[in-house]
Amino acid sequence: MSQASGFFITFEGIEGAGKSSLAQGLHDHLLKEGWPVKLTREPGGTTVGEQIRNILANPEFKEITPLTEVLLLSASRSQLVEQFIRPQLGEGNIVICDRFFDSTRAYQGFGRQVHQREIEELADMCTWGVKPDLTLLIDVDPEIGLGRVRTRSVQSLTQMDRFENMDFGFHERVREGFLEIAQDEPSRFRILDGHLDFDVLQQKVIQIATREFSRTIPHPHKLTFDRTMLD
Amino acid sequence: MSQASGFFITFEGIEGAGKSSLAQGLHDHLLKEGWPVKLTREPGGTTVGEQIRNILANPEFKEITPLTEVLLLSASRSQLVEQFIRPQLGEGNIVICDRFFDSTRAYQGFGRQVHQREIEELADMCTWGVKPDLTLLIDVDPEIGLGRVRTRSVQSLTQMDRFENMDFGFHERVREGFLEIAQDEPSRFRILDGHLDFDVLQQKVIQIATREFSRTIPHPHKLTFDRTMLD
Repeated sequence: MSQASGFFITFEGIEGAGKSSLAQGLHDHLLKEGWPVKLTREPGGTTVGEQIRNILANPEFKEITPLTEVLLLSASRSQLVEQFIRPQLGEGNIVICDRFFDSTRAYQGFGRQVHQREIEELADMCTWGVKPDLTLLIDVDPEIGLGRVRTRSVQSLTQMDRFENMDFGFHERVREGFLEIAQDEPSRFRILDGHLDFDVLQQKVIQIATREFSRTIPHPHKLTFDRTMLD
Repeated sequence: MSQASGFFITFEGIEGAGKSSLAQGLHDHLLKEGWPVKLTREPGGTTVGEQIRNILANPEFKEITPLTEVLLLSASRSQLVEQFIRPQLGEGNIVICDRFFDSTRAYQGFGRQVHQREIEELADMCTWGVKPDLTLLIDVDPEIGLGRVRTRSVQSLTQMDRFENMDFGFHERVREGFLEIAQDEPSRFRILDGHLDFDVLQQKVIQIATREFSRTIPHPHKLTFDRTMLD
């Protein structure tokens, strides 16, 4: 573990992999079980970060350069880590984040071909040593992922955000990028098949996450029991 | 010169030094004389950059960390350099910019004490080798500078932007920072006394700038004359 006493879980994958729903599902399950858990997302998660997200998601800003994109994502991340993730982990909480620096590596590095050196320099700079303890990569075929995005959104294609509007070649590079990043850090990553039935996938996510964090985070029921014994 | 065929002039100094008015005055004078000149500003200068400026200038966002600030400024700069400054210089134009990377060095480095290494890494990353050919530092006492800001703005103190709201100690460190940066690069900088009468200062700015850029930028009247000769 790279941080005080909490446990940091990130979800990664291309558009339509199911990350956001799975992250929400994991959060809700853990909360019901009494675990000290917080859910956030990138870009965004703070008031400032959500403003940055609005800039990045605006389909009118076609001119945003790949480097500007990385810098905006890094600004949002720096704010989220300092203002939310690090303090929450410091208090011993489980923090779940929908996307983190691996998305920048995959989208801007592999997808938009920003130099890896710049991406890594920025990742080091804005995370203050905070690293995920567990990263769940939901792997899905881009045709299926983007198909889901189009079905679920009532939006027309032109209203979809800038990333969703990129061609399949782009999303293929991003998918391959995620897989390569995961292979480089097998102890941090678990790759899950995003083509599985959602409920099956959700159960797998809950099982894997619980097995990992329960090595270090005290079980809420046991804690209640111990406290009762002391009264 | 660090770039193709144009000439890049930046204005620097603390709040209320008169930079923006002087930059506008220089631009208007050169335009009237027929020089190929463009005026822009930082943060901002592009559609995306102006959105970033709105975030930075919002007095409600007190929680923005110093590093997030540097990253947002760098995102705005990266977009401005790639989308505007570099192409304009490439076409042989004179580009005037109200603030550039020296402001980040002075405000976030000296003022808010972000590590110099991070500031320099970001400056290298987002300027793509574009450096000012001439930087006019308008030096003014913070009490006088901020006094001017308060007089000219009908806004109450609470409506002033985040930087203007900082204490005098902060603005003193920023002023000292600018002077130190200027001393390190005497060939690029000219330090002007911002306490001088505005019209006198404006004339000095025009004289210094014209002397510098006219070594490399062809004079518009001579150009017209030469063309006439060819007809």
